[in-house]
Amino acid sequence: ADMTYWNTNRQAFLEDLAQRIKPKRYQHVLRVEQTAIELAERYGADAEAVSIAALAHDYAKDLDVEQARVLAQTFWPQVDLSQEGSNILHGPAAAQILLDRYGVTDRRILEAVAGHTVGWYQFDLIGKILYLADYMEPGRDFPGVEVARELAATDLNAACWYKMKRTLTYLIEKEKTLFDGAVEIYNRWCQEGI
Amino acid sequence: ADMTYWNTNRQAFLEDLAQRIKPKRYQHVLRVEQTAIELAERYGADAEAVSIAALAHDYAKDLDVEQARVLAQTFWPQVDLSQEGSNILHGPAAAQILLDRYGVTDRRILEAVAGHTVGWYQFDLIGKILYLADYMEPGRDFPGVEVARELAATDLNAACWYKMKRTLTYLIEKEKTLFDGAVEIYNRWCQEGI
Repeated sequence: ADMTYWNTNRQAFLEDLAQRIKPKRYQHVLRVEQTAIELAERYGADAEAVSIAALAHDYAKDLDVEQARVLAQTFWPQVDLSQEGSNILHGPAAAQILLDRYGVTDRRILEAVAGHTVGWYQFDLIGKILYLADYMEPGRDFPGVEVARELAATDLNAACWYKMKRTLTYLIEKEKTLFDGAVEIYNRWCQEGI
Repeated sequence: ADMTYWNTNRQAFLEDLAQRIKPKRYQHVLRVEQTAIELAERYGADAEAVSIAALAHDYAKDLDVEQARVLAQTFWPQVDLSQEGSNILHGPAAAQILLDRYGVTDRRILEAVAGHTVGWYQFDLIGKILYLADYMEPGRDFPGVEVARELAATDLNAACWYKMKRTLTYLIEKEKTLFDGAVEIYNRWCQEGI
């Protein structure tokens, strides 16, 4: 079953991953996977697909930013990524790597990974689970994380909305630029629901 | 001196304005003018230009939204206003009316009026004063308005930043869509300063 979605397996992927990202981030990835699987059980999602998305989501986070930009732009050709930093690029870059190197073609997994920092227009269950697991894994400690955890226990959509709103508000408090693509997704969620 | 910037005078304009907007809004406009003139004195701005911008800023606020859209789109041809409501449209619509009907060609006045709800890339002193006067005139009573008043007493740019951040944050709290043009201005202020 481990090769339904990719041309590798969990152990081999983890060995590769450990070469790509810093040790603290590797530990974060394992916690995200654990949290994501718990959410998958609660909400009846495909645990294997969730696990793959979680394991891969930060694969490109320690990659050179210009390499990440080329990969990300390949995955999102319609978006102008010329001004973005690694915080935005690492999602679509990891999705492109999953596609190119690991043979992943399942759009739910690819879009979950690509959109895990900025959201997606119409996240399916896997996308929502990764989006939240990354935000609320047990190593996270910021004001409001407990609210996200409580919401995630009963209402996945409400928890995703909470993350989206808190993330944009946090960036504004810090006078950081807002990525147009993230605002577009926020606006779509406002108009059409999540 | 009253006809330096327009082909009318304050009294004649007020008589017209009283026919265009509701009485409560008319009173708001007079308070905005008073606050704007106080700020103009404090910061050494052209009081006549400030007065005109203040008197005109809500001229189109009670106009039919489709008429406002046509006028606004004429003033901002490069912006997609097809999805926007009166809250955005009434600024550029009023600027177009000033241009067409009152012969105002001073860009400082026109851009102050057009951008009084969303901000502008590089507000000059008149634009900043109107942006703030509209936010903090004595009839305004919302959480944070005292902060804006205190900031405006000593640091006009800091007060404009405060309004911009609070406005975006308020919209997000209420799950209201963000106007792309406003986000673009916010992002420019982040990168280049106000």
